[in-house]
Amino acid sequence: MMTQISTLRSILRSTIFVAVFCCFTLPVCADEGMWLFDVPPVKQVKEKYDFELTPEWLQHVQQSSIRFARRGSASFVSSQGLIMTNHHVGARNLHELSTPENNLLENGFYAKTFEEELPCPGLEILVPVSSEDVTEKVNADVTPEMSAEEARKIRNAAIAALEKETSDKTKLRCEVTTLYQGGKYWLYGYKIYNDIRLVWAPEESIAAFGGDPDNYEYPRYCVDCSLFRAYENGKPAKIEHFLKWSTDGVKDGELVFVSGFPGKTDRSYTREHLEFQRDVYFPWRLQKLYRREVIYSAFSNRSLENQRRIADDLGGVQNYRKRAIGQLQGLQTPSLWKNLPQTEPATDSPEDKIQKTLQFARSLYAGYDCIELGEFFNSQTFKIARTLVRLVSETEKPNSERLKEYQDGNIESLKQTLFADTPIYEDVEILKLTDSLTMLNEILYNDEDKFLYILDRDLSPKEYATELILHSKVRDVAERKRLVEGGIKAVKYSSDSMIQLVLRVERIARGIRENYENKVEAPMTAAYAELAQKRFEKLGTSVYPDATFTLRLSYGAVKGYKEDDGTVVAPVTTIAGMFDRAEKQKFKEPFDPPKSWKDGKTKLNLNTAFNLVTTNDIIGGNSGSPLINTKGEVVGLAFDGNIYSLSNNFIYTETQSRCVSVHADVIVEALRKIYNANRIADELGK
Amino acid sequence: MMTQISTLRSILRSTIFVAVFCCFTLPVCADEGMWLFDVPPVKQVKEKYDFELTPEWLQHVQQSSIRFARRGSASFVSSQGLIMTNHHVGARNLHELSTPENNLLENGFYAKTFEEELPCPGLEILVPVSSEDVTEKVNADVTPEMSAEEARKIRNAAIAALEKETSDKTKLRCEVTTLYQGGKYWLYGYKIYNDIRLVWAPEESIAAFGGDPDNYEYPRYCVDCSLFRAYENGKPAKIEHFLKWSTDGVKDGELVFVSGFPGKTDRSYTREHLEFQRDVYFPWRLQKLYRREVIYSAFSNRSLENQRRIADDLGGVQNYRKRAIGQLQGLQTPSLWKNLPQTEPATDSPEDKIQKTLQFARSLYAGYDCIELGEFFNSQTFKIARTLVRLVSETEKPNSERLKEYQDGNIESLKQTLFADTPIYEDVEILKLTDSLTMLNEILYNDEDKFLYILDRDLSPKEYATELILHSKVRDVAERKRLVEGGIKAVKYSSDSMIQLVLRVERIARGIRENYENKVEAPMTAAYAELAQKRFEKLGTSVYPDATFTLRLSYGAVKGYKEDDGTVVAPVTTIAGMFDRAEKQKFKEPFDPPKSWKDGKTKLNLNTAFNLVTTNDIIGGNSGSPLINTKGEVVGLAFDGNIYSLSNNFIYTETQSRCVSVHADVIVEALRKIYNANRIADELGK
Repeated sequence: MMTQISTLRSILRSTIFVAVFCCFTLPVCADEGMWLFDVPPVKQVKEKYDFELTPEWLQHVQQSSIRFARRGSASFVSSQGLIMTNHHVGARNLHELSTPENNLLENGFYAKTFEEELPCPGLEILVPVSSEDVTEKVNADVTPEMSAEEARKIRNAAIAALEKETSDKTKLRCEVTTLYQGGKYWLYGYKIYNDIRLVWAPEESIAAFGGDPDNYEYPRYCVDCSLFRAYENGKPAKIEHFLKWSTDGVKDGELVFVSGFPGKTDRSYTREHLEFQRDVYFPWRLQKLYRREVIYSAFSNRSLENQRRIADDLGGVQNYRKRAIGQLQGLQTPSLWKNLPQTEPATDSPEDKIQKTLQFARSLYAGYDCIELGEFFNSQTFKIARTLVRLVSETEKPNSERLKEYQDGNIESLKQTLFADTPIYEDVEILKLTDSLTMLNEILYNDEDKFLYILDRDLSPKEYATELILHSKVRDVAERKRLVEGGIKAVKYSSDSMIQLVLRVERIARGIRENYENKVEAPMTAAYAELAQKRFEKLGTSVYPDATFTLRLSYGAVKGYKEDDGTVVAPVTTIAGMFDRAEKQKFKEPFDPPKSWKDGKTKLNLNTAFNLVTTNDIIGGNSGSPLINTKGEVVGLAFDGNIYSLSNNFIYTETQSRCVSVHADVIVEALRKIYNANRIADELGK
Repeated sequence: MMTQISTLRSILRSTIFVAVFCCFTLPVCADEGMWLFDVPPVKQVKEKYDFELTPEWLQHVQQSSIRFARRGSASFVSSQGLIMTNHHVGARNLHELSTPENNLLENGFYAKTFEEELPCPGLEILVPVSSEDVTEKVNADVTPEMSAEEARKIRNAAIAALEKETSDKTKLRCEVTTLYQGGKYWLYGYKIYNDIRLVWAPEESIAAFGGDPDNYEYPRYCVDCSLFRAYENGKPAKIEHFLKWSTDGVKDGELVFVSGFPGKTDRSYTREHLEFQRDVYFPWRLQKLYRREVIYSAFSNRSLENQRRIADDLGGVQNYRKRAIGQLQGLQTPSLWKNLPQTEPATDSPEDKIQKTLQFARSLYAGYDCIELGEFFNSQTFKIARTLVRLVSETEKPNSERLKEYQDGNIESLKQTLFADTPIYEDVEILKLTDSLTMLNEILYNDEDKFLYILDRDLSPKEYATELILHSKVRDVAERKRLVEGGIKAVKYSSDSMIQLVLRVERIARGIRENYENKVEAPMTAAYAELAQKRFEKLGTSVYPDATFTLRLSYGAVKGYKEDDGTVVAPVTTIAGMFDRAEKQKFKEPFDPPKSWKDGKTKLNLNTAFNLVTTNDIIGGNSGSPLINTKGEVVGLAFDGNIYSLSNNFIYTETQSRCVSVHADVIVEALRKIYNANRIADELGK
């Protein structure tokens, strides 16, 4: 079976989605690193910027930092619990608080008094107040004789016990995080605030001015900021550690820090793995993104209603596409490869094992991506039908034998998603499925016989997609519930067109998955663990670990850069620049600032700094992090990276890669002059 | 050398650009066929529609028909030389007649008097007034003993002599056309008019209402019409054969004809060749179109100036993409394959030879397309540098040894293009070249060593593209002239970055071309000639030949259709429908009709028919053809096909494929009530 699938056209050369674990890079002279607060870059900052990172400074900044739900970063900016984060990080709450009469994303929001501040149900923030190296405790009962599997079990038990014990004692939420791929275990204690209220948010048309065209670009003009407030016992929380607002602005070349929660980096990838990403994974991924963006855009342009229906899908594809192009561009830049080993890995080294596993990935990933991950059947209807088919059969099995997403720990949230009544549009479904079945036809044309049972060979992709979508009822939540209640029998004998398709594909899909997990994922995990262990023995904590969505500190300087064509990009933009850009685009969306700004233009100081770039090493998850000066004061609010920063995932280079922040000045200027929010500007102390 | 290139990733599986010649399909029951006026579908029309195509009717329609330059079709619609064609067919003239103060595409044009009619320099139209079967004359001196090569020479000499002799005698422009791939030769005599003046054109925003989103779609609302006038001796030409305007409109199901110049069809493709198109050619082509559309769109959206600079490139890509998707969709529709042979071709049959040649095409086309056709170096700068390098070396050779585009007959127009001072934008050039070099990197990653001399391995695609564009001077016409005057020496020792690149690629590119022409093009041509001969011997002229941009007649009926999802599409739209569509799109471009229509709305009869669909079998080149009723009167003006008609290239099916026309009524309604052009409406006789 697998050989058939592995003959999927070589057009599908592809890669693996291995969760990568921990990384160490070699001595740093650029402003590289997402450093642990417990192992800070004191030496580097002292040497390069002559500034002393003191324990007090670090503790103050750490405890002013916030993890905003599972979405991003934030910080306390007043003693009364005022929280600053990105508009795009808080957007979900704005959406949830909107009514048919008042779309807060469109109109913005300002609470004139404490009483008007809007509670955000379900929102919680986490403040990292304690941290402890628990490596010895985690490994206490592990002995050298144990098998890897045994050791893992012992460690997991120790971690669970430690988390529970510390939580009970401290009343904090305690989480043990694996760093350096098992080189270290740290326990973090978070104070939770769960009465969070919305204080202020500007209109999306200024928060995300420039929209997709300016995403990841610079110069930039976004007030990508919103303010919330933490409450305790119904009153604004009293906060000891918060960041003051800078009264001095920030100068070109000045040392600045970003304190936040970078999500995930892959800097431990081997040279061979990076080549695979460059030559196989990204080209294949982009190929899919390109066709989808064109198909979705063409549909979107046909009518405003189409535009509304496909906006989310299209926006997602555009964002991924831009990121993937940036990452591929990074990987195709020879200078980025200079520091990597230039020789073939030694036989049986972890690098060698990784390279050999990548050979399997090459032949197996295509089938895995198209059949098991469902790229051939791109539609909500297929996803739902697949979940229904698997849910009823997996839950019949003992917990430990199930596919991981159907194990007890995951099943509640899986059901919540499955039974959520979100709108699904038939025309969008047909569009997406038609294109992915067209792709299936393009790729599998030589495997006709083998796929006869997937494809309906009497119908064109469009005819078949139409039939599959229109003859399926699983877009109706009641039908989903009925099928789940009816169990295997109800599902197996359902005449639903999409359920039928899922069932026809099921055997081959499961086979592919099993093969892929055994031949690619497992050996890759083992080889990277071995590699990490070797690196850690050599370098220890003298370098920073890969990002893991725990608090990190990055240092850098305010600094412009040169585009490839020689254009010099200045580090700071101004309000005048925003109006200039809008005017040059004739105020067409997404270059049309809100009425409040157009009407208020004459009141504004047009020289006010708007956005700025710095050399800080950041990645997704850092959105909403404060940009801090040496006094520990807010000078900005990180919200994006420029196009060159997209390869930060694999490697950081200081030459062009930049962190993009909202300047602190424009926030206060807007609060006072556009939103008449003096109460808040005063609270910020500026 | 070639084996290296033929190992170009199989991602590049691809096809051939063989000029295909003539075709015959089997007995027809649908409204299929682009019939010769000399071998008209009298029987078919009589049987299906009970209408008698008389010689008088045919002669009248033929002599009212016009070939509009090399661009499309048209017709005489008054005795005073009034010519009707599509707005998009005449657009180039509108562009040429525009001034910085008055963009005729944007503003439209109406000449209130004969005196105001605007001469269009260089524009000529051709009226087919005579035709003669010259097969015997062409073959007179050909004997069975002759080789194919000898026979071809004899025939070419006979054709040249016939054309000259008849031209001298008749003062017509005489052209011998090869039909049925050599089964027949016809000599057509055209009366030329070369004093053509612009009479009326509406604004592009109503001529192409709906823009790219509505291109190839239906329902539709375009006044894709403009009117010109033929002059003789400074006065409106006196025309005997012209089409009167229908006073009755046109009814659902009514028999209608299209008389025009369909450009090229490929209906003689073998089953194996169609499979190749479906599985190799279109997927590869679309892959390139998708990525370009995304890259160009993203650039376009960054600013209005970007939009202006890349509009032509982007528009072209979008149009091709839509057509290619439609054609692939057709080829992926199993029902379209039912009438084709289901068995393997017999050994040594022409079909077998074609299949074997396609195997070469598979391995060779990739290199040919990427290197020789320049897809890896997508930029004007490369094209110009390539032309310079080849021009100076080819013109040193005897005429017969040159590459065909550099032979004496072609060199004048080649130089005209080469020395034309059209704007080329550095940023657009860098954008396009960066993407195509990225593609080169994606495809050739395993061939590193072999391509070291093409790629600069120390630079990323973007860095290299930037360098190549910025360090080339060939965008300056004076520099081009200097190099051509300097000849081989000047070019070879030029330090121009792009000339250098062209020179580095030259040897391999020429090798690929030679190999491709010898192994693919020549055998394919020979095999199709053999196939056509066999078919012609069997079927003769009882069926129609493939389109060759000579005058053809297509019959059909006004008829709606069903979309794949079951939506019923009515055949005729109205002015009310146009305003409705505009309103639903909030009058956003390209759904914003011109001010003249919005201001004049109250004067219009909103029930006036706007566009209509019919079952006529048409293809590119038919744009501007009159839609005629049985009385020989104008009931519409063909301007497009719907999305299902795009596979007309290969095969016609009546189920959903439709010809889209401007209804005659909306033209007169607009002339009278929007443009106050009663003089012209009166002249049309309605």
